[in-house]
Amino acid sequence: MEFDLIDRIRRHTEVHRDDVVTGIGDDAAVVAVPAGRELAIAVDTLVAGVHFPHGTDAADIGWKALAVNLSDLAAMGATPAWALLALSTPDGDEAFFDGLARGFAELATPYRLALIGGDTTRGPLTVTVAVHGFSAPGEALLRSGARVGDVVMVTGTLGDAAAGLRCLAEADTAPYASLIERLNRPTPRVSAGQALRGIATACIDISDGLVADLGHICAASGVGADIDAPMLPRSSGLLTHFADVDALDFALGGGDDYELCFTVPADRAGEVGATLARLGCGATRIGRIVEGAGVRVLDGDGAAFEPTRAGWNHFVA
Amino acid sequence: MEFDLIDRIRRHTEVHRDDVVTGIGDDAAVVAVPAGRELAIAVDTLVAGVHFPHGTDAADIGWKALAVNLSDLAAMGATPAWALLALSTPDGDEAFFDGLARGFAELATPYRLALIGGDTTRGPLTVTVAVHGFSAPGEALLRSGARVGDVVMVTGTLGDAAAGLRCLAEADTAPYASLIERLNRPTPRVSAGQALRGIATACIDISDGLVADLGHICAASGVGADIDAPMLPRSSGLLTHFADVDALDFALGGGDDYELCFTVPADRAGEVGATLARLGCGATRIGRIVEGAGVRVLDGDGAAFEPTRAGWNHFVA
Repeated sequence: MEFDLIDRIRRHTEVHRDDVVTGIGDDAAVVAVPAGRELAIAVDTLVAGVHFPHGTDAADIGWKALAVNLSDLAAMGATPAWALLALSTPDGDEAFFDGLARGFAELATPYRLALIGGDTTRGPLTVTVAVHGFSAPGEALLRSGARVGDVVMVTGTLGDAAAGLRCLAEADTAPYASLIERLNRPTPRVSAGQALRGIATACIDISDGLVADLGHICAASGVGADIDAPMLPRSSGLLTHFADVDALDFALGGGDDYELCFTVPADRAGEVGATLARLGCGATRIGRIVEGAGVRVLDGDGAAFEPTRAGWNHFVA
Repeated sequence: MEFDLIDRIRRHTEVHRDDVVTGIGDDAAVVAVPAGRELAIAVDTLVAGVHFPHGTDAADIGWKALAVNLSDLAAMGATPAWALLALSTPDGDEAFFDGLARGFAELATPYRLALIGGDTTRGPLTVTVAVHGFSAPGEALLRSGARVGDVVMVTGTLGDAAAGLRCLAEADTAPYASLIERLNRPTPRVSAGQALRGIATACIDISDGLVADLGHICAASGVGADIDAPMLPRSSGLLTHFADVDALDFALGGGDDYELCFTVPADRAGEVGATLARLGCGATRIGRIVEGAGVRVLDGDGAAFEPTRAGWNHFVA
């Protein structure tokens, strides 16, 4: 039974990689890391009722469990290679397994990511994925390299996923499909992360909210950051359905967008914007790195204000 | 909060490894695999109420979550290097975190296993660990190499953990301490697995029960196996507290022992026994690989019989 779901995903993905020496079906997988490459490794767990509402479509769960992990590799600028999946579920329902496998495979296949192992057990619904990616020595994007004067940028748009979560409570969710799609099917910015290698001085993915995650860059780099709130990129879907003040709250504090927040030397911001526009996600200048500590949010007049949400923390919220 | 438990474990272990380029605290860890080594990778989840009783000591949970994974590396003959830990827990209780970190570190430290990342989230109590170990190309012990005529051997003694689980229901558990210790603090046979490289033709760790797990070797190798029930190694603790028939059931079908079951060419069984005796766990000949499929259990007269338990499966049991 342990390998049933795992086998199912393998059938859906059909990714063959020469660097997988022994794949699914033994006590451990055996893989070969290419010469001259280091390995970036991340793990993230999604829990039903915490990271996605009970009743979420199985394919969305499968997609998102991989997406949040690929987003960690994206934030390192790494190239995805292999994944492990550990599933705990209250029952062995066939349709659920198949849906989860399909959603996982939909995202894995274009990246040629191979599922090399896993574990399936009875228990409350939780999905843990561990991912492995390659980067050249010294090339990984860290949180610790931001320098005073750097520009702060983000990919895509912010706040959609948090807004989508709010919209799930509506009787008719159809008008909010684009926001809910951002919540259920986040796009990890893998190619953007790779394009930032050698350019970005620091990078993180936005899982807990912009202010919280940029705060991690500040702490790791020993700097502060000023954000110009009016510059935050917000989607037309968000601005159509929500008042400005709410859209701003979602953009500043809403988690689950899985965009990249990164810093670059000011003279390279234009080049980065152009490169990421070609990659489809775009990148927007939203502020700058300053001396000090922590993240300040500035309004259109340059006055600091306290956002009403400051990112969410599972043990605090 | 995400890194709090992880940091706590790091403080307990204090394992420093040069091959960890970027450890805990960024979006992903970055590690370097030594030249000429392949990577064995495994993942396993423990769920409260399924893999350990609710109320199990936190240190035992931390130990066991790592032990079951190191056991997978042992079954491959791999050398442990790095681990990731993903914890879901209903609350952020300080003492629980500290206990779990201590138990994990107690087992990790002697192996110089570095914790390189993790995830902590709110949810039902589940612990997922992913481990990474090294092996030389072609050296990993697989399930698929057993040949007709090979001897079947196991390390240590069988059935203790299942007996220990049964004993937890007793009003006074003190007399059964050695059995319960086997349940809560299994010893992964890492050095035994390494000693079997180049000798064992197939290997697996016993997590679901001897008959079930040897069955996996048979299926992967396209052979059958005959077990001589009277030869099964059973501890004095098991034989003291349980009738022969129960002790045999536990040894044949009880899971959670995390001994290795392996096959070797008949002319090397003596050498293997001596080597593993020097390593402290010993190894016992319990049967042989035969033509056919599946596992037959033979009594003292060589007559096949059906054991009453045939290993447990989370979705079947």
